[in-house]
Amino acid sequence: MMDRSRIEDLIAAYAELIDEDRLEEWPDLFGDPCRYLIISRANHEAGLRQGVMYAASRGMLLDRVFSLRRANIYEPHRYRHVVGPIRVKAVDGGVAVVHSHFLAVRIMHDGSSMLFASGRYLDRIDISKIPFRFNERIVVLDSDKIDTLLAIPL
Amino acid sequence: MMDRSRIEDLIAAYAELIDEDRLEEWPDLFGDPCRYLIISRANHEAGLRQGVMYAASRGMLLDRVFSLRRANIYEPHRYRHVVGPIRVKAVDGGVAVVHSHFLAVRIMHDGSSMLFASGRYLDRIDISKIPFRFNERIVVLDSDKIDTLLAIPL
Amino acid sequence: MMDRSRIEDLIAAYAELIDEDRLEEWPDLFGDPCRYLIISRANHEAGLRQGVMYAASRGMLLDRVFSLRRANIYEPHRYRHVVGPIRVKAVDGGVAVVHSHFLAVRIMHDGSSMLFASGRYLDRIDISKIPFRFNERIVVLDSDKIDTLLAIPL
Repeated sequence: MMDRSRIEDLIAAYAELIDEDRLEEWPDLFGDPCRYLIISRANHEAGLRQGVMYAASRGMLLDRVFSLRRANIYEPHRYRHVVGPIRVKAVDGGVAVVHSHFLAVRIMHDGSSMLFASGRYLDRIDISKIPFRFNERIVVLDSDKIDTLLAIPL
Repeated sequence: MMDRSRIEDLIAAYAELIDEDRLEEWPDLFGDPCRYLIISRANHEAGLRQGVMYAASRGMLLDRVFSLRRANIYEPHRYRHVVGPIRVKAVDGGVAVVHSHFLAVRIMHDGSSMLFASGRYLDRIDISKIPFRFNERIVVLDSDKIDTLLAIPL
Repeated sequence: MMDRSRIEDLIAAYAELIDEDRLEEWPDLFGDPCRYLIISRANHEAGLRQGVMYAASRGMLLDRVFSLRRANIYEPHRYRHVVGPIRVKAVDGGVAVVHSHFLAVRIMHDGSSMLFASGRYLDRIDISKIPFRFNERIVVLDSDKIDTLLAIPL
């Protein structure tokens, strides 16, 4: 039970840091090296390893955040994630395989909101030490129609 | 606590099997006989027992899946459920009365997504043996405007 | 763990009483006096204390419900909340500081549904006695574009 609640907390912290625009703290939730990938379901099921966003280390995640902060080429917006219940699929050698799913609403600066994305989180979580960290998070998007709009991590 | 987490797992598995298109495994989550009903809130509050989808056994649930697979009269789509926290209303004689609620997004083959349905799950769950199974699941839809579009169970 | 599950239950009860139109019972979830505030993120971050809905006692919450029932100046509708996982931020002197987040769908009488609101719940919960009660609930809306439409509490 202890482990499960720490896993839930890690997954909730991920959504909170993004939605509250505390992006600089977001890479701290990952191990180093790590694997972070956003990919459409169709590409994921086809076995492709290339997605619309990718990082292999905490430094790459942070680079992503820095370029977001500097670039300002996108209209300011925020997300609101709602994450469903987690499912622990396996625990082996200090690593938990955990699946969950989410909806994300996008709120634009003018106040308009829309359903922006839905999908699954396929996680490999290092539970061998506290605090727990993501070794791998694959974000599998239900739809293919999202790529060019994606600036902030999901 | 043990029971509660098994109940949560059953409810999460239900959403997962549907959303991941593993419909052939979905009837295994029910007892046999069972009662499965999708009904609008208006009809449910009026005490009607007739809904837009109904099954009284695992076999009837499976028939539903087979006809879905064969018929192909609907445009291919998937759902993404997000299920809120469960509320255990009563436990009596090995059966738990559990309420929860959900949103379902529908993702069409062309990648477009829409909020498709919302509502409540009113469950009677057999907790007398492991794995837990649904004796009854009544899906009460918030809206009446859904009937003709409903192909995949919710 | 006991406390956490009681907190989850209080937060789930709040959504349930509103969504199932049992508004007269909703003030019972608050202490007396209490603080209830719905405010936009922009105003909340600017440190403003004035929102689109406010109450400082159980009686004021109940007044709100009575005027809703009498007034009938708005088109009948319901919400469906989906509340994400809770985060216990601090526990001090019998009070838990708890954050969670939500989406709310609005279902009109004609059956049409729309994503109506998203945001965060910032709670101060009295955990010194059972049942737990809200000392304070601040509903921080992600968007500013909601005010005039807001009749039912969120």
